[in-house]
Amino acid sequence: MSKLDPKLAERLRSNADGLFCAVAQQRGTGEVLMVAWMDGEALYRTLTTRKATYYSRSRQSYWVKGETSGNTQYVHEVRLDCDGDTVLLIVDQKGVACHTGTRTCFDTDILLSDSVE
Amino acid sequence: MSKLDPKLAERLRSNADGLFCAVAQQRGTGEVLMVAWMDGEALYRTLTTRKATYYSRSRQSYWVKGETSGNTQYVHEVRLDCDGDTVLLIVDQKGVACHTGTRTCFDTDILLSDSVE
Repeated sequence: MSKLDPKLAERLRSNADGLFCAVAQQRGTGEVLMVAWMDGEALYRTLTTRKATYYSRSRQSYWVKGETSGNTQYVHEVRLDCDGDTVLLIVDQKGVACHTGTRTCFDTDILLSDSVE
Repeated sequence: MSKLDPKLAERLRSNADGLFCAVAQQRGTGEVLMVAWMDGEALYRTLTTRKATYYSRSRQSYWVKGETSGNTQYVHEVRLDCDGDTVLLIVDQKGVACHTGTRTCFDTDILLSDSVE
């Protein structure tokens, strides 16, 4: 069982895997850094430690962002969306967010852009 | 079958429901407006029309954002993340993004904030 406040837990809408979406955004610049997954316990740890903590679907375990790489996320704000299935984390990202070495996970693969005049 | 380029379709990593995450961000301001879901066909429609088009899990159908409300999203950019399970849409949001009437879906429910000194 998660230690998350039961009243908050009731408002979360998880998917079939028991998880919900977490979007990490850089404070100040507004960069969308990455999207990962949480359950109630990951959210509880994030709220109480201010270290962004996610749930890895592939490893089936919790991970504190940057714990091994040093690229930590200090959490300034957490906001829940209107239907309770996504949280937005406003963070200070140390170093790079992406495991590939880029600043964000969205820096490399552009599927559509404004046409150049 | 989706009309999406098969090479692109191969790079998408969908969840158990056959869907992936789409984050809509306002161009210029960087506001994270909302998070919704897509499949290959929704992405194809978004890329070809530049109108943000999602898949509704509850209604089990495609929806063009703003088609009934007028609060459309014109899509300037689409970026795929490093592991292929999230797209970031850079959009111009007309009016409000949230069905509750707020500008973004994250405006109302703050779970954690910086303590006021």
